[in-house]
Amino acid sequence: MTAHRVDPGRTERRPRRADGERTRRAIVREAASLATVDGLEGLSIGNLAAATGISKSGLYAHFGSKQELQLATVEEAERILHEEVIQPALAARPGLEQLGAACEAFLSYVQRRVFPGGCFFAATSLEMGARPGPVKDRLAAVQSNFTALLRSFAATAIEQDQLPAHEDPDLLAFELHAILLGADTKFVLYDDPAVLDLARDVVQQRLTPGKRPS
Amino acid sequence: MTAHRVDPGRTERRPRRADGERTRRAIVREAASLATVDGLEGLSIGNLAAATGISKSGLYAHFGSKQELQLATVEEAERILHEEVIQPALAARPGLEQLGAACEAFLSYVQRRVFPGGCFFAATSLEMGARPGPVKDRLAAVQSNFTALLRSFAATAIEQDQLPAHEDPDLLAFELHAILLGADTKFVLYDDPAVLDLARDVVQQRLTPGKRPS
Repeated sequence: MTAHRVDPGRTERRPRRADGERTRRAIVREAASLATVDGLEGLSIGNLAAATGISKSGLYAHFGSKQELQLATVEEAERILHEEVIQPALAARPGLEQLGAACEAFLSYVQRRVFPGGCFFAATSLEMGARPGPVKDRLAAVQSNFTALLRSFAATAIEQDQLPAHEDPDLLAFELHAILLGADTKFVLYDDPAVLDLARDVVQQRLTPGKRPS
Repeated sequence: MTAHRVDPGRTERRPRRADGERTRRAIVREAASLATVDGLEGLSIGNLAAATGISKSGLYAHFGSKQELQLATVEEAERILHEEVIQPALAARPGLEQLGAACEAFLSYVQRRVFPGGCFFAATSLEMGARPGPVKDRLAAVQSNFTALLRSFAATAIEQDQLPAHEDPDLLAFELHAILLGADTKFVLYDDPAVLDLARDVVQQRLTPGKRPS
């Protein structure tokens, strides 16, 4: 759990070139997968070298410290979340359809095992909860941004009369995000797609005015 | 992450006496707290010795392997969950009040930081998801039992006309459990009781027929 450091004065960083960027991207992609199994604290230059086949010295050239590696890993996971979940949601029609699309994209991203240990942010948020610092702060910001996105979709849906006027967008966003996080935990634990179908039914019931018992 | 093992033939287990049991209980209680911060995989005879002040050899006498320590830790956490959450729920009036009491007892157990890293089972379920074996099986059983308990409360509430007849107890149990797991994740991440109050509002809205938008 000790940070791996190199003396910056002794690290000759080569100019960033396209293939250097590709290598770095491949490394952080592997690190993000590993982190959903072994944790962000379980990441080390050593096990990343074993997983990628890149020498430890090669990895040190990319990441000077364990925290730098963790932050780069979170950044890559955020890019993937954006591509897998947020972009498809934003591409749907404003309001209710965006809410449904965000939930379905999240459940699909979990089901397709984009990360082997389920949602990167669900796994690492609990792991890093008791470890204050810039990594935890970044994870908290990503989770807040996702809830805020769901809230904005909910607010639009209410404005456009797609959901009843007395819905509270904060409560609805919290509830939907929690359903997604709970579904992730249960899917990781039971490895059963029926869990995700149950979550889909809950979301559909929640977002279909009139289907919900009153 | 290697398992600590002792040769069973060389371990002289003393007869279990009351003070031996007390010591063992204190050890697994500490282990359960540590596991919510460092993970069940992060548990070791070494860091447990540091946390409890008991010698490594003393700990080896109680737990012959890392897996044995993990299973004993899960068993203790299950005992605590029963005491903190399940017993208060069962003590309420059958049906709707039991559902509400289970949710409130869970949120209170998180808020009072019975474990420093939030709900033991939320933290360790995601950690152990990718590690098949008896520890993961036990965690899965505890989560299933808790959902089944919520389901039985929901079924009773529907039978007794405390909730509408068209409620689906499986969906409601899944949804409530997810809300609790999501609230735990956000509380661990933000360290803000407002998260738990939001969860309380969602639960109350969900369990109050007529309050829910239709």
